[in-house]
Amino acid sequence: MVIAVDTMGGDFAPQAIVKGALRGAKQLPVQIALVGRSEEIEKHLPDSAQRPSNLRIVAASDVIAMDAEPTGALRRPESSLFVAVDMVRNQEAQAVVSAGNSGALLALAHARVGVIEGLRRAGIAAPVISRRGPGIIIDAGANADCQPIHLAQFGLMGSIYAEYALDIREPRVGLLSIGSEPSKGNSLTRKAFDMLTAMPINFVGNIEADGIFNGQVDVTVADGFAGNVALKTAEAMAHFVMDDLDNCLRDALNGKLAEFLMTSKLGSLHRRYDYASYGGALLLGVRGIVVVSHGRSDSRAIASAIEVAQRAVEGGVVKHLEQACQQLAVNAN
Amino acid sequence: MVIAVDTMGGDFAPQAIVKGALRGAKQLPVQIALVGRSEEIEKHLPDSAQRPSNLRIVAASDVIAMDAEPTGALRRPESSLFVAVDMVRNQEAQAVVSAGNSGALLALAHARVGVIEGLRRAGIAAPVISRRGPGIIIDAGANADCQPIHLAQFGLMGSIYAEYALDIREPRVGLLSIGSEPSKGNSLTRKAFDMLTAMPINFVGNIEADGIFNGQVDVTVADGFAGNVALKTAEAMAHFVMDDLDNCLRDALNGKLAEFLMTSKLGSLHRRYDYASYGGALLLGVRGIVVVSHGRSDSRAIASAIEVAQRAVEGGVVKHLEQACQQLAVNAN
Repeated sequence: MVIAVDTMGGDFAPQAIVKGALRGAKQLPVQIALVGRSEEIEKHLPDSAQRPSNLRIVAASDVIAMDAEPTGALRRPESSLFVAVDMVRNQEAQAVVSAGNSGALLALAHARVGVIEGLRRAGIAAPVISRRGPGIIIDAGANADCQPIHLAQFGLMGSIYAEYALDIREPRVGLLSIGSEPSKGNSLTRKAFDMLTAMPINFVGNIEADGIFNGQVDVTVADGFAGNVALKTAEAMAHFVMDDLDNCLRDALNGKLAEFLMTSKLGSLHRRYDYASYGGALLLGVRGIVVVSHGRSDSRAIASAIEVAQRAVEGGVVKHLEQACQQLAVNAN
Repeated sequence: MVIAVDTMGGDFAPQAIVKGALRGAKQLPVQIALVGRSEEIEKHLPDSAQRPSNLRIVAASDVIAMDAEPTGALRRPESSLFVAVDMVRNQEAQAVVSAGNSGALLALAHARVGVIEGLRRAGIAAPVISRRGPGIIIDAGANADCQPIHLAQFGLMGSIYAEYALDIREPRVGLLSIGSEPSKGNSLTRKAFDMLTAMPINFVGNIEADGIFNGQVDVTVADGFAGNVALKTAEAMAHFVMDDLDNCLRDALNGKLAEFLMTSKLGSLHRRYDYASYGGALLLGVRGIVVVSHGRSDSRAIASAIEVAQRAVEGGVVKHLEQACQQLAVNAN
């Protein structure tokens, strides 16, 4: 399995990306293609003798800026992002990972890799934490305006991903709404509810936001606007509470004990809520594995993103999704 | 000023409601009308001699159940909720507070009190906490499907409420979106953005969820679906983090120290995030002050809801809103 890593995208690129890829190469049974400006990549690699054999450089001279207009990337074939995405298009790689301009990544993935036949839209599946382990929310922001069929398909996509990449048996899929009864929600969710019921998935009905975190479901379906709002609110609130807590502990305890608690014990909590450190949202629904890492990704986040890609490839997520779509088409005829 | 309190609505009614009203009567310069079944209310009141003089009972024999179908309440004129709302309609009270069936309260407020001329929809203004003090989010769930003009009017309503009831000068109003540039968001927010710009308010543009909590704005405008999702997510995440923390501290410290921290020091944090304890979301845009308390409200929450009502009446929120709508109509002609 080859994973193409865009080394030039991200707030801390190329250093954090190259270091993260090195970590990934050491830990995982994958071939990693470091795509970008060779001389800049070389700077952050050990001497050839100590370099992992499953790591190679694929030269690309151009760089898409973090704030560049996304569709402009379609006309930049020499850029690291374009070259990395095209490796998936050309089946030279099974997955691409980038912490760069996410709009450009989405545009390139759609244009160069393409959406799986039978699906209307690709959606971003972002990891969330719950009391019962990892889950996802889809769509986390790729589609701000959705139709009911998009949400129904997100449910299918999320279920397949949860089953084959996260190893969750019969994943429970819930529809994010503002009340649990089928009649609750807005006109979009009410129509999507019926369509989700007809999907070959374990649809458990509407959930409210607490259901995302209390383990009621494994997959939360939402339009990209509501999904993004939920995700950003969760992240903001977690930071807010942890900061409050930090102040509170420092008031209540002596400096050293508070310091000890905050760094050694609560530090891991902090990280747990730091969605950036997960490093691995996926664009689901395209004909390859596309991992959208946070711009702030450090080397640890990149290594984790590579693992997310590896698990999705290993689980055959794209193949299973294609098969499910074919089956739906057969049943519809 | 008279505040009508529906004593029969709420998970802990009538006891928690009567006790909360007693608290409110002692602390605030208001007349409180306890609406409901006299004999049940009497049970929770002290003897007449010790009873605050600013508290009286208004008899109502019927009770709307928490799970009753909301519009059914329109045909229950003997119910405590109907009678309490009608006191506002008949100007026998300036505000109504209920922790009962919120759908029924909304239906009655619309039908019996009515929406202010010039406004298209009433919206729920719910309190939120931020690093810079109290703020609100509007709409917190009354309107799951919105048009751009509704959001623009929520901005006006929220601004007037923040200025006259929360004493915030030139309240900063933000539009909840998924990116800060005007072009970011969904089709609803993009259209609402321009309309908000034209409103006579201090509109600061799009905000993401972190802006609600970091004090970037005082008023967050959202459609009732997204607003409710943000609010419920914040509440759920706060509980999730606090529970995690509780476990973490108990692991790290000896039992007594952890106990002390959690109860005496962090207990107030817990309460801070417990939106139920605020007790006071308002239905803004109707011709009276309508406070929608959480079903779980205890006596403290009810007392706080009465204070929310008192401040809104004292600030002349309804009058200021009517004047602003008249001014808009004049300018439009």
